[in-house]
Amino acid sequence: MNGKVYIIGGGCGSWDLITVRGFEKLKTVDAIVYDDLINKELLTKCENTELFYMGKRAGCHSAPQEEINKKLVELAKDGKIVARLKGGDPFVFGRGGEEIAALEKEGIDFEYIPGVSSSIAIPGLEGIPVTSRNISRGFMVVTGHSASGNEDEENEMIKSMAGFSGTIVILMGLGRISHITSSLISKGKSPFENVAVISGGNSNKHICVKGTLENISEKVKQKAVEPPAIIIIGKTVEMFCKGE
Amino acid sequence: MNGKVYIIGGGCGSWDLITVRGFEKLKTVDAIVYDDLINKELLTKCENTELFYMGKRAGCHSAPQEEINKKLVELAKDGKIVARLKGGDPFVFGRGGEEIAALEKEGIDFEYIPGVSSSIAIPGLEGIPVTSRNISRGFMVVTGHSASGNEDEENEMIKSMAGFSGTIVILMGLGRISHITSSLISKGKSPFENVAVISGGNSNKHICVKGTLENISEKVKQKAVEPPAIIIIGKTVEMFCKGE
Repeated sequence: MNGKVYIIGGGCGSWDLITVRGFEKLKTVDAIVYDDLINKELLTKCENTELFYMGKRAGCHSAPQEEINKKLVELAKDGKIVARLKGGDPFVFGRGGEEIAALEKEGIDFEYIPGVSSSIAIPGLEGIPVTSRNISRGFMVVTGHSASGNEDEENEMIKSMAGFSGTIVILMGLGRISHITSSLISKGKSPFENVAVISGGNSNKHICVKGTLENISEKVKQKAVEPPAIIIIGKTVEMFCKGE
Repeated sequence: MNGKVYIIGGGCGSWDLITVRGFEKLKTVDAIVYDDLINKELLTKCENTELFYMGKRAGCHSAPQEEINKKLVELAKDGKIVARLKGGDPFVFGRGGEEIAALEKEGIDFEYIPGVSSSIAIPGLEGIPVTSRNISRGFMVVTGHSASGNEDEENEMIKSMAGFSGTIVILMGLGRISHITSSLISKGKSPFENVAVISGGNSNKHICVKGTLENISEKVKQKAVEPPAIIIIGKTVEMFCKGE
């Protein structure tokens, strides 16, 4: 009989930002297939479980998605109860959808357990609310790659970002920050719009750099900020954030 | 000596979707000031704590924000360790920012503990990923009121929603669904765009109605869907959602 796969959001920042449901489930499964962004302390709390590392960090060669899908299917077909543990929430650029599609195709039972998303929590822990009454009436979450691909799609995405009056959160965008900020300015966003870049939000050696659309790209270069980083654009950056 | 206020996201759906950190903190505080959307089972697990209900549900008279701020300040000035427990995440339309501003003004220490946001988790639990590779390259979260206010702001918000190719999540928008959907169509969004409306995502008696921008408003009327509800617009609605 097939096992079951739990697609679990591990939260971000510290091990204890996983949900109670996710944590309890992790302690009962046969195997955990985990990501780069998973807190190592969390894994040490699941000692009696088989652990499989299957992450893929920008720029490094690592397990392609098909290999991960194959591993999940294989373990479940062995009758195992599997946790697919992902940083943040599995459905926020976590490819949870692709993994579910692969499981459905093989007739394997699955369940989604949501997680605290880094897109909301990492700004929040830094003192940046993604929304605030009369200051930011909504937020948008994209990646640095959302705007890449063909030129039409890129133009359309930049245009809707430029016209959005709420907070813009960009994940995995550090490598393209200069392009993104100058494109937003050219599409009409004010060069004086507040921006913060938070790096290492998942660890203790974190840094938060503040600036404007016009100067943030230069500032992060000067401070040698490293990926993974989150870029936040909007007025709430100025509310409580103590960044440099 | 002043106490401290923990602004805690209670998650959504079930009591066990709060974070481990949030749950552990709840069990140690002197007082909990909570919202409408808080799971009652969660509160029963914090029996030895003083509980203060201070919610405000659409359409019902209840505690205004200043009264809540005042209560938090008062409790902390009594030296109490207080949990301000909110549905979802405190910074996603949770007025966490306003409460922090009130605490800062009075010199009271605070800490934010993020939560699973209903904007991501309620669609996810229904089988709707907010992002998916090559299908939705980002998402936007607004409220039904984000687009209200003065006419210019409203037009601008609808325009950026209409031009956005990712998933749009609208919280507290059921009462204005007819206006929102027709405005989006008039600004160029396809009338055949997929839409889902999930009501009662926080309880067992939930319903998910699926349709298109053109017909969803009529469908939710026919099914007498009640607030609070979440509206999701975009292609990922069709991926795994089993709604009617």
